[in-house]
Amino acid sequence: MSRQSNRTTDSKKMNSELFTLTYGALVTQLCKDYENDEEVNKQLDKMGYNIGVRMIEDFLARSSIGRCQDFRETADVIAKVAFKMYLGITPSVTNWSPAGDEFSLILENNPLVDFVELPDNHNTLIYSNLLCGVLRGALEMVQMAVDVKFVQDTLRGDNVTEIRMKFIKRIEENLPAGDE
Amino acid sequence: MSRQSNRTTDSKKMNSELFTLTYGALVTQLCKDYENDEEVNKQLDKMGYNIGVRMIEDFLARSSIGRCQDFRETADVIAKVAFKMYLGITPSVTNWSPAGDEFSLILENNPLVDFVELPDNHNTLIYSNLLCGVLRGALEMVQMAVDVKFVQDTLRGDNVTEIRMKFIKRIEENLPAGDE
Repeated sequence: MSRQSNRTTDSKKMNSELFTLTYGALVTQLCKDYENDEEVNKQLDKMGYNIGVRMIEDFLARSSIGRCQDFRETADVIAKVAFKMYLGITPSVTNWSPAGDEFSLILENNPLVDFVELPDNHNTLIYSNLLCGVLRGALEMVQMAVDVKFVQDTLRGDNVTEIRMKFIKRIEENLPAGDE
Repeated sequence: MSRQSNRTTDSKKMNSELFTLTYGALVTQLCKDYENDEEVNKQLDKMGYNIGVRMIEDFLARSSIGRCQDFRETADVIAKVAFKMYLGITPSVTNWSPAGDEFSLILENNPLVDFVELPDNHNTLIYSNLLCGVLRGALEMVQMAVDVKFVQDTLRGDNVTEIRMKFIKRIEENLPAGDE
C-alpha cells in the first residue's frame, strides 16, 4: 500500500479500543504465520519501523516541533507529545544513564494490551514490540540511530511496562555531490 | 489472546494515524498470506466479526445506550455514537429502502484509507472490510442479524465510501429449559 502524495485529511480523535483489538488481530495473525515468538517479535519490530518511517512526517507537521537540542529533549518530546498524540497516554521518562545516552519510558497503562492475556505457549512473545519499531523508524528519519527494547511488561507480570531507549549515533545526512 | 476478566482501564483518546498505519500492516500481511483478494476480504470480515463481538460490551458500557426501538434508531446509534467513538467520524445515514430494512452509511472521510492507494494487482480487494465484520459481530450480540457490505469505496475511485446495511432477522434469545 503506497502513500498518497497529497494528503489533506484532518486527524480524527478516536477511542483506543478498535485500535487495540485490531492490533490484537495483527499479532494473532503473525503468531499463525511464523514458527516462533522470536520471529513474530522481529516482524512486529519491522512493521513498526515501516510505520515510524511514515509517521514522522505527520508528527512533525502536526506538532510543529523542530530539531531537538539533545537526547533529553528528544525523550520529552516522545513521551509528552508523540505518545500523547498517537496513543493517548503520557509515559514518564526515567532511569537516565549517567552519560545521558539511555533512558526508560514507563507506561503505566499500555493501551495495546487492554484486552490481552498471553497464552502459555507464547511466553517469549514481546506483544507490543511494534512500538519499538515505530520509535526506531521515526528517529532514524531525524538522523538518530537508537536501540529500543522492552525491559518490563505488565503482560509478563511486571508492575509496569518499560521501554528502554539507547542513543547509538547521529546519522550523517548525505550531502549532494560537490557540496561539503 | 483472551480477554481479561477484570478490565478497569479507562479509554484513551488517540489520533487515528497509528491505527490507520497498523491496519495497513494487517491488510498487507493478509495479502501476503492469502492467494487472492476474495480470501483476504473474507479474513478481514471474520477478524472484524470477532472484534465486533468483543467491542459491543465496551460500547454498551461507555454509551449507556439501551435496546433500540427499531432499525432506524439502530442506524442513528451506529453513525452518531459508535463511529464517532471508535473512528472519530460521523457517517450520514441515507438511502433507506421503502420497507425500512436497509440503509447506507456514507463515509466522506474513511480514516482507514488515509495513507493508502490500492496496487493494481489488488483491484478486487475490499480494503476496509474489517468494518463490515465489526458491525455484523456487534449487532449479532444484541440479537440482530444483519448483512453488511461496501457498495462504494473512494479507494476504487468512487466519490464517497458507502456501507450498505440490511436487516435480516431478529435472533431469538435462548430461553432457559423449563421456561415458556
